[in-house]
Amino acid sequence: MTIKTVVWGENVHEQENKIVGDLYPNGIHGCIADALNKNPNISASTATLQQAEHGLTAERLADTDVLLWWGHAAHEQVSDEIALRVCEAVWAGMGLIILHSAHFSKIFKRLMGTPCNLTWREAGERERLWVTSRNHPIAQGLPEYFELENEEMYGEPFGIPEPLETVFISWFQGGEVFRSGVTYKRGAGNIFYFRPGHETYPTYYDENVQLVLDNAVTWAHNSAAKIQNVTDAPNVPVEDAIEKINSRGAKLHQDGEAGFK
Amino acid sequence: MTIKTVVWGENVHEQENKIVGDLYPNGIHGCIADALNKNPNISASTATLQQAEHGLTAERLADTDVLLWWGHAAHEQVSDEIALRVCEAVWAGMGLIILHSAHFSKIFKRLMGTPCNLTWREAGERERLWVTSRNHPIAQGLPEYFELENEEMYGEPFGIPEPLETVFISWFQGGEVFRSGVTYKRGAGNIFYFRPGHETYPTYYDENVQLVLDNAVTWAHNSAAKIQNVTDAPNVPVEDAIEKINSRGAKLHQDGEAGFK
Amino acid sequence: MTIKTVVWGENVHEQENKIVGDLYPNGIHGCIADALNKNPNISASTATLQQAEHGLTAERLADTDVLLWWGHAAHEQVSDEIALRVCEAVWAGMGLIILHSAHFSKIFKRLMGTPCNLTWREAGERERLWVTSRNHPIAQGLPEYFELENEEMYGEPFGIPEPLETVFISWFQGGEVFRSGVTYKRGAGNIFYFRPGHETYPTYYDENVQLVLDNAVTWAHNSAAKIQNVTDAPNVPVEDAIEKINSRGAKLHQDGEAGFK
Amino acid sequence: MTIKTVVWGENVHEQENKIVGDLYPNGIHGCIADALNKNPNISASTATLQQAEHGLTAERLADTDVLLWWGHAAHEQVSDEIALRVCEAVWAGMGLIILHSAHFSKIFKRLMGTPCNLTWREAGERERLWVTSRNHPIAQGLPEYFELENEEMYGEPFGIPEPLETVFISWFQGGEVFRSGVTYKRGAGNIFYFRPGHETYPTYYDENVQLVLDNAVTWAHNSAAKIQNVTDAPNVPVEDAIEKINSRGAKLHQDGEAGFK
Repeated sequence: MTIKTVVWGENVHEQENKIVGDLYPNGIHGCIADALNKNPNISASTATLQQAEHGLTAERLADTDVLLWWGHAAHEQVSDEIALRVCEAVWAGMGLIILHSAHFSKIFKRLMGTPCNLTWREAGERERLWVTSRNHPIAQGLPEYFELENEEMYGEPFGIPEPLETVFISWFQGGEVFRSGVTYKRGAGNIFYFRPGHETYPTYYDENVQLVLDNAVTWAHNSAAKIQNVTDAPNVPVEDAIEKINSRGAKLHQDGEAGFK
Repeated sequence: MTIKTVVWGENVHEQENKIVGDLYPNGIHGCIADALNKNPNISASTATLQQAEHGLTAERLADTDVLLWWGHAAHEQVSDEIALRVCEAVWAGMGLIILHSAHFSKIFKRLMGTPCNLTWREAGERERLWVTSRNHPIAQGLPEYFELENEEMYGEPFGIPEPLETVFISWFQGGEVFRSGVTYKRGAGNIFYFRPGHETYPTYYDENVQLVLDNAVTWAHNSAAKIQNVTDAPNVPVEDAIEKINSRGAKLHQDGEAGFK
Repeated sequence: MTIKTVVWGENVHEQENKIVGDLYPNGIHGCIADALNKNPNISASTATLQQAEHGLTAERLADTDVLLWWGHAAHEQVSDEIALRVCEAVWAGMGLIILHSAHFSKIFKRLMGTPCNLTWREAGERERLWVTSRNHPIAQGLPEYFELENEEMYGEPFGIPEPLETVFISWFQGGEVFRSGVTYKRGAGNIFYFRPGHETYPTYYDENVQLVLDNAVTWAHNSAAKIQNVTDAPNVPVEDAIEKINSRGAKLHQDGEAGFK
Repeated sequence: MTIKTVVWGENVHEQENKIVGDLYPNGIHGCIADALNKNPNISASTATLQQAEHGLTAERLADTDVLLWWGHAAHEQVSDEIALRVCEAVWAGMGLIILHSAHFSKIFKRLMGTPCNLTWREAGERERLWVTSRNHPIAQGLPEYFELENEEMYGEPFGIPEPLETVFISWFQGGEVFRSGVTYKRGAGNIFYFRPGHETYPTYYDENVQLVLDNAVTWAHNSAAKIQNVTDAPNVPVEDAIEKINSRGAKLHQDGEAGFK
């Protein structure tokens, strides 16, 4: 069973900044998709902000098992309509992997219900990611920790809800710590946030980072058929109650009427 | 220490439907505030949709410890700006209690990050709420279960994230179950969803329901001073790093520059 | 990849009670193993209390991916040593599925850290299990709810820690509710508790129950290699610190000394 | 309302090691109790391993709101009976604060259901504790982080279940991280684990550490009356079912019979 994966890239720094463009000539999204495609069970394509509907038509999302999302400078340019479409796809069962600065993306803030803020410093300092959940599927094959010699620092407090699971915690050379790998479930959709990935460093070429993303796609995949009409709140008519009951008391609604939303 | 509490009511059914108006002549919000004010440690006032800024100016929210919210027919009439203002107040430390049909309010959906949907039936059937977390502060003083002879049914699946704690689960005469009391934390704010409260029944006059709301206000109160600028993501300049480091590698940002949002 | 599965049965009622013996001529464990073996990806065998080491030698557990456990009348006859062995296997990554009255097994109480108690009634009443986590892997392929016409009642409060996920909640004809399907993680091991399965009813022949168990085995399987020495607390000598440090201050331990346990 | 608090100390190092004895002439437990007693709402006394029943008679525990526990060298000398008594007191509603090396105490391992292991190094290195849950009651009044210039290192992976809340994460000079403040609930009892406190350093004289312990006692206190018979699993006779039912099907138990444990 192939996991249909889409890597979404904002694709702004790659076009506007020579350092980033030279580092990721096919875009950050292209680099990640190439890495994922080494796994025969994953079929990864890309989508970008600049495409029509940001490359995420309803048809394409309906046919996507797992979506990865990298954004930074242009969060506000993502249309509200498409951000909601992505959230609904997650609720229906699509896996979602949020990368680095996408902590401030519309979709992550909307799915978390919190500010998703943090402290930060761009100094190319050393980051060490410790596995806190031994043998978690996302950490499978990793050593007890791995290092990225040059990364941007993100520091606690990280404005997220308490995670379902904490998979990685980072140590930073400058003195901070950060929950760098956390999982959530929203509706039928599995969500993983993964911290590293500053655009001016070769993070997405790192073997351990690639292994994490590969594992995360496999973990996030929910093989059940997507839920249809995922926001519906169906009325159960009195005569269809499983245990027979008689209607009693004052009523506001007529039978079969749709509820308020 | 008095807990400054605001009970927000949509106040539509009370004005438009004779049954509801006769049952709650001072509004559902008025009935709840009266009940809370029997507790000398709580000082409860009301606010409604129809007031300027829905009665929730920035000044008033900044001075509110706990907000209760009842809405049903007019969720969409709540302005986006004020819904966001309420969410930010929660993140800063204000407690929030979401009542019954407010499961579909803008603020609850925004704070949960899920559809918050369910199945429902208006048949005046019997509901029995079981305490699932013994001696939880919200259940203090309650028997093992209590009954509401006439209530609207809400059935699972309830489209919420996995709760921090499940305090009540309901049994319905017609055959359904529902997680009727669930807690969350978003930022520094404690959140409690409580299911009962259909507008055509005298639910908010029930002694056990009043005890739950009284307990919930006390539980939700975070006595720490509110967090200011709760969505900020401050940059930590390299020279201010706690452990001395030198800046390395390519940089996208200038020193002291604000990050992208 | 075949999931090596062991179904452990206490095998007391089947031997001592004619009703149970007639219903499950190969034991409850035999019935469950037969059902699981219909799935070509599962290879299920059985073990019982009466066997040497209760059929759970260290070698066998080391080669087991998922263990199912049914017990009732003889929890105390399970040796402490083997109960601990099972817990350690779970921490190392073995999946564990706890069935019905095994809520009071030594292993479940030890892994939960709570009394695991409940209320109960043996009246052959109707139970209806509602799926509360749509499209959860354990609920895949099930309808929104399913019924068992004759089951023992288990009622809340259920003395468990807050679950990682609540997958099923039961409605009982006599008026109670129960969290009938809950997940946990302990170390690298996935744990699922599933409520139905009273020995005097044909529950384990029910198609939906068999589907749940089949799904649960697949879900519980952690494909990573088992963790060795899963309770070790290794000392990191000062000279092996990742970041170079000098030893300072008073010391209680000599270098390389084992810590206290 | 005064919070009746007992600080339990193993009291071995203080008697056997001159450094520790000089640092804590009244024992670690005495130092902590003195600090807590500065809060007029807390009334703290001490108990030690060497006392009859380790100072924890059933009567005393029944009259204790919150228990703090420090142990290291003599975990195995705590009797199984008293360890179980403490667990039952927690389930009944007593708060419990586990300090530093007590991660390996019988009571913590029993309440967590996991190995509670970690890596460690005694080098007097710098520890920096970051508050990860802003305005959490346990962190109230603290700065964003605080430092202990000399501490023992504890490193991830920490063998605990996923916490209810993560309040502190530590950065260590030698390169490790650790979840240093985590909360749990077991039955009606609130549990907090707090990492710092190596016996050869003056950690319990630190103002921030004392503030954390003071906050933690207040947070852990459950003001509801203790649950009696906290492990009981009562039978509900058929004739006492809330909703009238008739007994059906085969029965294993006689009416009113106690269940198996």
